[in-house]
Amino acid sequence: MPTDTTILELDAPIALQAIAQLAEHSPLIHCITNTVVQNFTANLLLAAGAIPAMIIDPSECQEFAQVADGLLLNVGTLHREHCPTYYHAAENANRYAKPWVLDPVAVGGLTLRTEFCRKLLSLNPSVIRGNASEISVLAGGGASGRGPETQLSTDQALDAARQLATTIEGIVVVTGEVDLVTDGHRTLKVLGGSVLATRVTGAGCTLSALCAAFASLEGDRLTNVASACWMMSRAAEFAARQAAGPGTFALHLLDGFAQLREAQ
Amino acid sequence: MPTDTTILELDAPIALQAIAQLAEHSPLIHCITNTVVQNFTANLLLAAGAIPAMIIDPSECQEFAQVADGLLLNVGTLHREHCPTYYHAAENANRYAKPWVLDPVAVGGLTLRTEFCRKLLSLNPSVIRGNASEISVLAGGGASGRGPETQLSTDQALDAARQLATTIEGIVVVTGEVDLVTDGHRTLKVLGGSVLATRVTGAGCTLSALCAAFASLEGDRLTNVASACWMMSRAAEFAARQAAGPGTFALHLLDGFAQLREAQ
Amino acid sequence: MPTDTTILELDAPIALQAIAQLAEHSPLIHCITNTVVQNFTANLLLAAGAIPAMIIDPSECQEFAQVADGLLLNVGTLHREHCPTYYHAAENANRYAKPWVLDPVAVGGLTLRTEFCRKLLSLNPSVIRGNASEISVLAGGGASGRGPETQLSTDQALDAARQLATTIEGIVVVTGEVDLVTDGHRTLKVLGGSVLATRVTGAGCTLSALCAAFASLEGDRLTNVASACWMMSRAAEFAARQAAGPGTFALHLLDGFAQLREAQ
Repeated sequence: MPTDTTILELDAPIALQAIAQLAEHSPLIHCITNTVVQNFTANLLLAAGAIPAMIIDPSECQEFAQVADGLLLNVGTLHREHCPTYYHAAENANRYAKPWVLDPVAVGGLTLRTEFCRKLLSLNPSVIRGNASEISVLAGGGASGRGPETQLSTDQALDAARQLATTIEGIVVVTGEVDLVTDGHRTLKVLGGSVLATRVTGAGCTLSALCAAFASLEGDRLTNVASACWMMSRAAEFAARQAAGPGTFALHLLDGFAQLREAQ
Repeated sequence: MPTDTTILELDAPIALQAIAQLAEHSPLIHCITNTVVQNFTANLLLAAGAIPAMIIDPSECQEFAQVADGLLLNVGTLHREHCPTYYHAAENANRYAKPWVLDPVAVGGLTLRTEFCRKLLSLNPSVIRGNASEISVLAGGGASGRGPETQLSTDQALDAARQLATTIEGIVVVTGEVDLVTDGHRTLKVLGGSVLATRVTGAGCTLSALCAAFASLEGDRLTNVASACWMMSRAAEFAARQAAGPGTFALHLLDGFAQLREAQ
Repeated sequence: MPTDTTILELDAPIALQAIAQLAEHSPLIHCITNTVVQNFTANLLLAAGAIPAMIIDPSECQEFAQVADGLLLNVGTLHREHCPTYYHAAENANRYAKPWVLDPVAVGGLTLRTEFCRKLLSLNPSVIRGNASEISVLAGGGASGRGPETQLSTDQALDAARQLATTIEGIVVVTGEVDLVTDGHRTLKVLGGSVLATRVTGAGCTLSALCAAFASLEGDRLTNVASACWMMSRAAEFAARQAAGPGTFALHLLDGFAQLREAQ
């Protein structure tokens, strides 16, 4: 299949349809994520219409894979002792045909997570969501080593994203000023959002959880996952209009998600 | 003692008296709770007039049992390695005659926590706070397996709650549209609240912490624990009037608690 | 060098200069902190102009010491298994000449953390930030044992703070109604703030993280660290004017930090 080099913007009606589908189905999303953003992630999923569950015991993770609709693996506060739990959770998601999302927070300069995320690639994540630097590292490029901050523009990472999507036979989301969502062949872009989202911890992490929720829906997964980005951008714009700074922004962001959900 | 089948609504003056008592005594509440809601739990206890302490090391838990006024055990993010710490904390609370609350988050479909919470019943928790499904499971009924979401109405769980309260010789709180608080003989109900509380993660978890605080007060424990539910319902109604969605609701909820405290 | 017994108030222009320097350099601050306040800490550092990173794996902590600009160690939810990670993180900060801050939460009545924090003193923390009770305990005085609440006035702790600062050859910050910042010879004070900060969990913990950020700046470390206290006090006053209680206060506090940063 030849690559379509045109990057289309996701249409609002398609995104709104996906948001309505999310509200209707209330997918149950298992989040194995860093302890910094667990609360914000749970609240954002609830506001958007999904049901979060943060379960960490290996045996319970295995049981839960059968009832969950999707899985998030976020390595933000990874400890070497967590790795088997993460790995088996991904295996179980595959076994029960549930989509799973990898958020490779700060891969590059930190060896444990970089090697572990590369190992997870062999389990073919359904979706990888990262910034340009993180996606570039996983696609085989260089690393910045300055932690979670990105050094590349989103455009520069597009080639890496397409390559990585082809490798995992899944979807790669590169977020930044413009969000790009690609399966290696088709690429969608989502514009807008707010710079305030970069001043709140976990905006990217929570978007990854939301990608798991949207990836669990029926229909075209590429447009569904792009709809997660679209919902985040619209909620961020709503919040930026209400907010006097990053503190109030984070709360209005949750309200914005709820209003988008309720409007459907 | 025969069971009183009349379910009385908790009187506001009694609840307000308990709230004043809480503000006066500022009980120190040891919370061993899930990592998703630790922050919200601590802030809610502070707003209500109690002092939270989140201590997790086994040896420190043992020391702290002597100075704490109450204990919360919440199994939301239980790991099998945590079980001994939880168990010994409950034993120590009993040893020092401090009330302890069990929040059996999502028991039913997940084996580790279900078996562990059943084992904890033998230590006679002072209070168990859960939704209808969780209480039903602990009383010996079936389970839904869909995680923390409840499938039964509060009324349907009343029989289970009475039975469970009798078994543990303590108090069982079933929260839902109507909150029921029973010691197996007397049952109180608390009305009101806001549906927005179901869109914020940890509303139930924080109520369980609050039950530990109120259970530590002098006087009739049944009305004291019901007063925790009453305070939550009134704060939720206050917050619902101020809020534009679940994000702002959570913050106004804390303000509502503080205003109820300060009004006494 | 004789001790200057005059306690000068930090000048606003000096604090504003340090705030501008923080915004310009965006120091990367490694926070090994308790799970209750991780999210609030990360958001406060971002609002103030620093970049937080919460990394917990021992090998990653070692790698990160080379790129981080400062380190926070907060023992709020310490577990005995964490101690080696904390200890090596401090050693590595020293090896790479990065400042590190110790927040000895609730030392005194709890043996593990008290003994461990005393052991950390031998690694000469750049800054220790605590309340009067905590500083007094580390300086060799008695303990209250009632958890994180302080029992001594800030003034009473000044002698202890000077003594402790001399011992570690670093800076000690005692926070309370008046904040005192001393290197054992010179002492600065910072006035103001809001009593609402005592009703939000982690106000002290986040200030310790902010001290790490300011300690990483060029120039006089004593005035830089005092500037962290100054920024907190001004942001708290801003928030108190906007807030209707502790919930909304916490969010406006973050907005206040962002506004102080942006004004420079």
